[in-house]
Amino acid sequence: MSASTPKQAFLEHLEGIRKRYLPEVLFLLDDVLREAELGASGLAEMCRYHFRTGGKRLRALLPLLVADCLGEDPARAVPMGAACEMLHNATLVHDDVQDGDEARRGQETVWHRFGVARAINLGDAMFYFALLLAQRAPVAVERREALARRMLAETLKVIDGQEQEFALRASGRPSLTRYFDMVEAKTARLFVLGMAGSAEMLGREAGMLEGLAEAARQLGILFQIQDDVLDLYGDKGRDQRGSDIAEGKRSILAVHALENASAEDARWLLEVLDKDRAATSAGDVDRVAGLFDRLGSLPFAVREMHDRRRAALAAVGALEQPRLSAMMQGISETVLEPIRDLV
Amino acid sequence: MSASTPKQAFLEHLEGIRKRYLPEVLFLLDDVLREAELGASGLAEMCRYHFRTGGKRLRALLPLLVADCLGEDPARAVPMGAACEMLHNATLVHDDVQDGDEARRGQETVWHRFGVARAINLGDAMFYFALLLAQRAPVAVERREALARRMLAETLKVIDGQEQEFALRASGRPSLTRYFDMVEAKTARLFVLGMAGSAEMLGREAGMLEGLAEAARQLGILFQIQDDVLDLYGDKGRDQRGSDIAEGKRSILAVHALENASAEDARWLLEVLDKDRAATSAGDVDRVAGLFDRLGSLPFAVREMHDRRRAALAAVGALEQPRLSAMMQGISETVLEPIRDLV
Repeated sequence: MSASTPKQAFLEHLEGIRKRYLPEVLFLLDDVLREAELGASGLAEMCRYHFRTGGKRLRALLPLLVADCLGEDPARAVPMGAACEMLHNATLVHDDVQDGDEARRGQETVWHRFGVARAINLGDAMFYFALLLAQRAPVAVERREALARRMLAETLKVIDGQEQEFALRASGRPSLTRYFDMVEAKTARLFVLGMAGSAEMLGREAGMLEGLAEAARQLGILFQIQDDVLDLYGDKGRDQRGSDIAEGKRSILAVHALENASAEDARWLLEVLDKDRAATSAGDVDRVAGLFDRLGSLPFAVREMHDRRRAALAAVGALEQPRLSAMMQGISETVLEPIRDLV
Repeated sequence: MSASTPKQAFLEHLEGIRKRYLPEVLFLLDDVLREAELGASGLAEMCRYHFRTGGKRLRALLPLLVADCLGEDPARAVPMGAACEMLHNATLVHDDVQDGDEARRGQETVWHRFGVARAINLGDAMFYFALLLAQRAPVAVERREALARRMLAETLKVIDGQEQEFALRASGRPSLTRYFDMVEAKTARLFVLGMAGSAEMLGREAGMLEGLAEAARQLGILFQIQDDVLDLYGDKGRDQRGSDIAEGKRSILAVHALENASAEDARWLLEVLDKDRAATSAGDVDRVAGLFDRLGSLPFAVREMHDRRRAALAAVGALEQPRLSAMMQGISETVLEPIRDLV
């Protein structure tokens, strides 16, 4: 009996892959710590501690889903899935230091528990563990080298995007163009790695890699916009409503408002965003939300999400692989699920 | 006309390699920034800023020296030399954050100039630039992969050694065994990478790699002991005398003293070491130096340096390659040069 909607079909597919292969991914995430033969230090312990925060492991499973849709054995993408998951978590460990976040999924962050210096060490090690995991890919050495090159290149874009985000904060009224550049680098490149990188490792031709890269790019941007919107308009289960505003994040809503507000409103909004997190009141958040309402920032973000979703589907559609199209349909619906009532 | 001492001969050899190849190394260190096609962020700018601190570029030249001694064209080791230099500097950028050091060779450190968050990004990027540089090695793809694996493994040891150093500080009276384990990981592993890694990239057999690794291990430990001793007894040109004591570093002198002092003296020494840097007076430093004198910590360190030097020479000696032996003789004398009057 087939599932009744693309989203349900995708979730069943994802669940099947998760059940069958996630244990192997998790085994590798731990095995690479043993392989490194670390001394009496706490690196392995801290790494295991961080991974206890859990998560959906979407980065780990994406390369396996792509492999499966391409008619390959998903097991071949297990080391790469582990590499992507390790990489994503390396960025989280350093992000938490940079943003001063004290908790992640209800657990103290690594820097808050073990100190900034040790959290820097752990992130450094995890960036390298990711490459050791990718070296385990069961493919020809040339393909492994191409995979390593792509991991290095895409990750450098992610780090660069992190830099761009800091630059946005220092730039007064940033443009939406700069916002999208930042998001493409910081968020979408790990999706590009997981999807196009998987196909590349499996030896697919350039047209397929380009199509998947474009679809992943749009999906990644969609994912980030959704995350931005969810913080203010959804029930995220983390911190309180509008924590992005308190933190001063240049979300799509904030950047749209800064671009469209009067000089006076923009100045006021920047002041609220740049206040100390603790100094931002619930009243501040309400007034910012009111400004977003007047300027149509939410409808703008919703239109962007629809556009990105359509672009992602068009990019895979051109590849004429029904299973890939179905996957992208399902995954984009799943990404939008937490804010379903808004879109 | 041949040089009159091993050290002079080595310095001439080093100078010849430096003159001929360092420009190519420096070109690559910059070219990899261009290759990464970074956005509008400041990563490339910060990286160039950091490299303006200069330095002897010993990590860059070591792989070329080894290649030359093995009768290979040093040009083949240029990408690897650039990779080792990038790696070493990645660790420095993060070290400066971790240690709170505000200046390096008379220039503001990256975190002090650009902020902690951006210095974390830069270090992360530099760890990855190093691997992109290693991928340029003009050898068969299997050897490039072996080189990448060794870089990952040795660098993880370096990060682990950094962790061990923090653990030493938290451990009360650490043993000299733990000190040497820490130094082997934190300092010596980059020497192992530069020497054994170069020979491995050039396809030399296992015996050669093991001999060079052991020699590099001893040389690295020698280098660190020399650095520890120089801080208190030499004229380092950086900060003031005894800055390691003010900083609370577990140097070979401090660890030897902690292991051999009375319980009362050890407690007092730990108190001084764990004081805020700014709270440590010149009088504190003098009293600590007096304790080291009474306990024979300097003669112990000097004996260790002689032992390490002999062990390094024995390890290359067994390889029966006169040029390698001459190089090791010269390099170890050069390492000891700043504290010549003590040894």
